[in-house]
Amino acid sequence: MSAQSVLLAGEWATSAGTSTFQAANPATREALPDAYPVSPWDEIERAIRSAHEASKTMRGWPGERFAGFLEAYADGIEARTDDLVEMAAAETALPAEPRLRNVELPRTTNQLRLAAAAARDGSWTTPTIDSANNIRSLYGPIGPVAVFGPNNFPFAFNSIAGGDFAAAVAAGNPVIAKGHSSHPGTTRIFGEVALSAAQSAEMPAGFIQLIYRTSHEDGARFVSHPLMGATGYTGSRQAGLVLKEAADRAGKPIYLELSSINPVIVLPGVLQERFDDVVEQFCTSCLMGTGQFCTNPGLVVLVDNDKSREFVTAVADRFQNAPVGTMLGEGVERSFQEGVKAIQAAGATLVTGGEAGGGTGFSCQNTLLQVDGNTFLGNSEALQTEAFGNGSLMVIAQDAEQLVAIADGFEGNLTGCIYSANDGSDDSLYDQVAPALRSCVGRLLNDTMPTGVAVSPAMNHGGPFPATGHPAFTAVGIPASIHRFSMLQCYDKVRAHRLPAALQDKNPTGSVWRFIDGTWSQADVGS
Amino acid sequence: MSAQSVLLAGEWATSAGTSTFQAANPATREALPDAYPVSPWDEIERAIRSAHEASKTMRGWPGERFAGFLEAYADGIEARTDDLVEMAAAETALPAEPRLRNVELPRTTNQLRLAAAAARDGSWTTPTIDSANNIRSLYGPIGPVAVFGPNNFPFAFNSIAGGDFAAAVAAGNPVIAKGHSSHPGTTRIFGEVALSAAQSAEMPAGFIQLIYRTSHEDGARFVSHPLMGATGYTGSRQAGLVLKEAADRAGKPIYLELSSINPVIVLPGVLQERFDDVVEQFCTSCLMGTGQFCTNPGLVVLVDNDKSREFVTAVADRFQNAPVGTMLGEGVERSFQEGVKAIQAAGATLVTGGEAGGGTGFSCQNTLLQVDGNTFLGNSEALQTEAFGNGSLMVIAQDAEQLVAIADGFEGNLTGCIYSANDGSDDSLYDQVAPALRSCVGRLLNDTMPTGVAVSPAMNHGGPFPATGHPAFTAVGIPASIHRFSMLQCYDKVRAHRLPAALQDKNPTGSVWRFIDGTWSQADVGS
Repeated sequence: MSAQSVLLAGEWATSAGTSTFQAANPATREALPDAYPVSPWDEIERAIRSAHEASKTMRGWPGERFAGFLEAYADGIEARTDDLVEMAAAETALPAEPRLRNVELPRTTNQLRLAAAAARDGSWTTPTIDSANNIRSLYGPIGPVAVFGPNNFPFAFNSIAGGDFAAAVAAGNPVIAKGHSSHPGTTRIFGEVALSAAQSAEMPAGFIQLIYRTSHEDGARFVSHPLMGATGYTGSRQAGLVLKEAADRAGKPIYLELSSINPVIVLPGVLQERFDDVVEQFCTSCLMGTGQFCTNPGLVVLVDNDKSREFVTAVADRFQNAPVGTMLGEGVERSFQEGVKAIQAAGATLVTGGEAGGGTGFSCQNTLLQVDGNTFLGNSEALQTEAFGNGSLMVIAQDAEQLVAIADGFEGNLTGCIYSANDGSDDSLYDQVAPALRSCVGRLLNDTMPTGVAVSPAMNHGGPFPATGHPAFTAVGIPASIHRFSMLQCYDKVRAHRLPAALQDKNPTGSVWRFIDGTWSQADVGS
Repeated sequence: MSAQSVLLAGEWATSAGTSTFQAANPATREALPDAYPVSPWDEIERAIRSAHEASKTMRGWPGERFAGFLEAYADGIEARTDDLVEMAAAETALPAEPRLRNVELPRTTNQLRLAAAAARDGSWTTPTIDSANNIRSLYGPIGPVAVFGPNNFPFAFNSIAGGDFAAAVAAGNPVIAKGHSSHPGTTRIFGEVALSAAQSAEMPAGFIQLIYRTSHEDGARFVSHPLMGATGYTGSRQAGLVLKEAADRAGKPIYLELSSINPVIVLPGVLQERFDDVVEQFCTSCLMGTGQFCTNPGLVVLVDNDKSREFVTAVADRFQNAPVGTMLGEGVERSFQEGVKAIQAAGATLVTGGEAGGGTGFSCQNTLLQVDGNTFLGNSEALQTEAFGNGSLMVIAQDAEQLVAIADGFEGNLTGCIYSANDGSDDSLYDQVAPALRSCVGRLLNDTMPTGVAVSPAMNHGGPFPATGHPAFTAVGIPASIHRFSMLQCYDKVRAHRLPAALQDKNPTGSVWRFIDGTWSQADVGS
């Protein structure tokens, strides 16, 4: 069986790799027919050199060029919707409808179009002008970007079509996509559409490239190569930290989205007031997509009382009666079980679930664990182990004071939620717990579960380590996510005609937002 | 001899350290009288815990609180000007006037006051509001910040008074300063003033702390401690990379300002047009402060012709006749010589200088090296070795094409300058070389030397590795430098009265700039 081609330097090429892999259909546990190559180092380096050449060619190109590509690409994706949905459904077992066709694919094309609009507008570059000193700066492209996509969003976080890809391109960079091994066919279709869009937009050959797999060693060489600009990685903590070490050593920015257990703090009053609503919201959020979201609520903190115990029982009952979803792959099934076992070994007890199976294909029972506050505080690191999937841990604090102490000891997370009563009875406790939670999460929510991640300029899909590698950046949201793939470029007394258009006295479009002498403005300098 | 006290948890305390060190007067090469302690790990950890408590106390405090401290501190520094100038002159041999009293001290208090204004105004937090989704975000404090100051600016980059300190405090963080061993007395005086200002501003005990030295091992533990927020480091590449590795491994942001040779490209036409002016500007910039600036022009690229050879001769002549300055310490004297030897070993030849001595105290001759373009391209990494001090390397490219190739191979630098003729004769070559230089420097200059670093909102005192650890951040310039010590904090459907003032519908001051639904505005939401 000959392996699928890789996309190198503007064309599909037979990989020189001698080993191959196949994806599996998670619903049948059986291998899918196509084989994909593991790219050897020479191939990766060829991609890097081609991307570097593309970077050089595109230096100084206006955002319009990248916007044109992104829009052509979004159109092309829509034209291949049927193929993409069919392939992704086979490779991930995610429902073709509504999830893939009606939710994730429109989200993906929307992100690409938002990125196009941001690239065209140029306000994301934050042009800053000190007219008295004639010093002017903006954010510009950083160079070739490697994108490693995760398993759980075959479209919206795909290495060659998702949020990191869109942000890296909007900043004016070439991208070398490293597809996730669980959905190479989906990634390949995107690659076909991307190549066609790049050709019609007359982008250089190395602008968009695609490989499917590398050895761990070559992955580390890849992200630390002198010609690379930066890396975006979403996936497992273990693999991410290997790449982080290599990139850090080489001084190359790497943006990681790693583990997050997304604590939800349910204050006593809200259970008195809206018990059924909170049970419903929690169970829906925790089991949706078989719990395979970065923002899945993996830990709930309650104060010990009758209502809290009733809450645990109600959730357990719902977990037992809810259908068990299919997991994305054998690795997810295995690591979820390992996570559940680690949490038990750390002192938690199983309320329900915990066994493999129960659903179609790769699956585990809907799983609820429980631990008391003293045990949690005594072993909090191990009890914050992520079990990525359809499960959660209930932590029962002995009193309000202990609940605050628990919140004060959380590791970095993408999100933290607090549910509180509307009648004000929880407000005093909210004021104690919120500052503690605030300092360890990227996004603080009230009265809503964390699984929804709006593509909003105000979104933060980020947070302190180990949720991500740097707490000042978000992976979702345009224009903020674009800054990850840029560098600050200052022009000091550079002659006017040599400045980028956005830094010249005249506002090039009349609409670019610029920070001129301390004031945000769309006007010309001096007007 | 009893050692000077350290500033821990709000008071001056006798260090538990058993070893001490003394600074030297660089002009006499003799030890100064005071002994300073090397803090043991327990002491460092006590400082970290105290800073963490301060962080918790200050959560949610308005910028006004930090502004009040910064302004009281600036006033206090001015009141101690005589003491500071006398001590710094003895410890660094930098001229008391104008350098210390009339340039660096006003720059330092100006930075503190600019940081105070930014903290009070709050626009630096970049409040971003998506009113339709009720998602709102801003930058908030990151937690305790360690600041390691360099040797070459005893005031303006001092660990307890300089740019990193001001930025970390403006963001709302406590600071643990690690003084530079070459000017501990200066740092101690700042510590006295800072403590007094912190007390009068009623800041918590662990807000500002000071230690003088740690072992290398403890320094690494310090920056990677779980309770630390981030680190700012300016200094040698070797020591900085040790700290970087430890901080990176722990997922703690570390902002480094390391080596930079600041290439200056002199195009052929400008030497025809303004020969004397360029000679004068270069020699002044290169020898000022005995060349001990991060932005010292350490490498000049010229195209081979009579005028370029004449330029090298003219510079050599000036170097031989210029007074030889005193270096900051024995380490600087030694490493400058090592740098010069490494550049020679890599293929460069000595034009003038190269020997130790020639000035008062620690000193080396004004040193000029030269290498041809072929040799440079064949061994460019070694020929980009930094020799921090009063020296520079002239690279003679055989033609314009080679000059572009040389610029394309530069490592990351803080700055890059291009001198070109006013008559347009260099413009075509400028257009070829500028994009290459642009991609590897933080600040691109025209027709001026890089040594001036204005404290401007548009400044970038940063650049790609190894100049710094992350190319998206600047160490100089308010408000941009503040972002280094902050994290992005999103509020998703958080109830209105619980939001930080800057995220509520009403603009809290009427003057905070906010990005509301895609528009920068000082208005209320919905108005």
